[in-house]
Amino acid sequence: MELADGVLAGDQRAIARAISLVENEPTRAPSLIRQLFARTGQASVIGITGAPGVGKSTLVDRLVVECRDRGKTVGVLAVDPSSPFTGGSILGDRIRMQSHSGDEGVYVRSMATHGHLGGLSNATSDAVLILDASGCDLVLIETVGVGQGEVDIARTADVSIVVTIPDAGDEVQAMKAGIMEIGDVFVVNKADRSGAERAVFEIEGMLALREFKEDAWSPPVLKTQATTGEGVSDLLETVNRFSEESSESQERRRERVHFRLTELLQYTFIQRLEKQEHSRILVRDAVERVAKGEVDPYTAAADIMERVT
Amino acid sequence: MELADGVLAGDQRAIARAISLVENEPTRAPSLIRQLFARTGQASVIGITGAPGVGKSTLVDRLVVECRDRGKTVGVLAVDPSSPFTGGSILGDRIRMQSHSGDEGVYVRSMATHGHLGGLSNATSDAVLILDASGCDLVLIETVGVGQGEVDIARTADVSIVVTIPDAGDEVQAMKAGIMEIGDVFVVNKADRSGAERAVFEIEGMLALREFKEDAWSPPVLKTQATTGEGVSDLLETVNRFSEESSESQERRRERVHFRLTELLQYTFIQRLEKQEHSRILVRDAVERVAKGEVDPYTAAADIMERVT
Repeated sequence: MELADGVLAGDQRAIARAISLVENEPTRAPSLIRQLFARTGQASVIGITGAPGVGKSTLVDRLVVECRDRGKTVGVLAVDPSSPFTGGSILGDRIRMQSHSGDEGVYVRSMATHGHLGGLSNATSDAVLILDASGCDLVLIETVGVGQGEVDIARTADVSIVVTIPDAGDEVQAMKAGIMEIGDVFVVNKADRSGAERAVFEIEGMLALREFKEDAWSPPVLKTQATTGEGVSDLLETVNRFSEESSESQERRRERVHFRLTELLQYTFIQRLEKQEHSRILVRDAVERVAKGEVDPYTAAADIMERVT
Repeated sequence: MELADGVLAGDQRAIARAISLVENEPTRAPSLIRQLFARTGQASVIGITGAPGVGKSTLVDRLVVECRDRGKTVGVLAVDPSSPFTGGSILGDRIRMQSHSGDEGVYVRSMATHGHLGGLSNATSDAVLILDASGCDLVLIETVGVGQGEVDIARTADVSIVVTIPDAGDEVQAMKAGIMEIGDVFVVNKADRSGAERAVFEIEGMLALREFKEDAWSPPVLKTQATTGEGVSDLLETVNRFSEESSESQERRRERVHFRLTELLQYTFIQRLEKQEHSRILVRDAVERVAKGEVDPYTAAADIMERVT
């Protein structure tokens, strides 16, 4: 069976191979995605982001259970900042797969950083399309909301959930601020801890400073206890409500496509430079000259642009 | 006085204005950098990265003190994942500046994420050149080593210090793994805590799995207590030793320039597409068609590339 056919049939092994392909063989990704694209656009894509230690994974697992109870099929992409060097993400996959093993309606996958510029973001976009084409009703993308790259990935979702906890340390608070802007729904997890009400209040206070268009969705702040499942059903309801009520979804989709196209154009441009001997030599010479201090990087880049376009 | 002249004279206000310019006005950055570039290449650039809570800021402050004791001038760039939305980084600047206020030999600056693709990395590269041109002997770049973008920034340094602590939580451990590959020197901070020896042992174990070229620098694992300053002098000696002994510095410099040129070429290419009406319309139409599901992103990107190059 062709790989694309397997994905379209919802075969979990085909899905796994397809995601590995977009992760590791970017040159083969386009033809696969071309075969799948007509069948995409059905899944709701939900981003879940937050600092380390806020309980994102547990919350995602609870959301999966909640979705399954409602008869929905779910794909989970855990964007993992650990590297292939230690195999951390593979271990994580195994542990997380177990709790849903035997359930054909759930697919869980970690996406690891491979150190390529924009590689993770490209691969994650394609993995979302693969899960979408395979028939998932929901695709959950879990990211550690710290780095710019991770924020960019979260931005590709239809709806973004930002997860925090009561009384997070200073540095966690600072990080939280960076992802404040991208949240459509906010969650204070571990809400049994003292300070949960104050955390809700603080986030609401920060949101009050945000400028919203009139009639725009006003992000709610919910409380959950992922370990017991409390509040998770409400969270899913709220996410659904966002998808139905928000007028931003069309605009959001356009932004996401624009972001994706920009990434692809950048990537393709650099690939072309590397492919042609003429431009490859130009770049190599420019690197030498900049490294020797003979020319600044801006002038060198402008020179190359002159000669290749 | 011209801005560039002010920077070259080491004037702190000029430096501050110059860094704000490369952060906020990317179109004005090239002409500034062109004026400064001939005077760059003197500073040692040291990257310090680690998960939240390992004590990076305190360690950096101690390194600054140590450098000042040796008569060296220092610039610090704290790459801050918080956003302008909350002003977190500005506050951080103020607090951190105070401890060195009145010392003309120290310049501390936070670089905040502005949500632009590659914006932070571009701006940080330029800020390093500005500090270098202003006469800093050392430039310390402090990043939270979690996201790909932050790792990329750390990679631009002449030498990378990776900071950890004993008995970090699981998620912190996982993050640590992602930055393991980029470390030239490893530090177990808060070494008075129990488990410090074990942490050193673990890192050495992970390093043993790394493949090094023969005669290559073998990354040492040091212990520090940033709060008391213990071990910080040793750390600085080790960093200096790396700069002197390692044969990788030329190659490292070339890699860094190559990375920077690639970024600039990507950025310039997208800017050109946006500037010309012809290509701007092509991109806008492509976004519409992909958003409607009429064409997949790869085909759309390839079409645009066909027509503009």
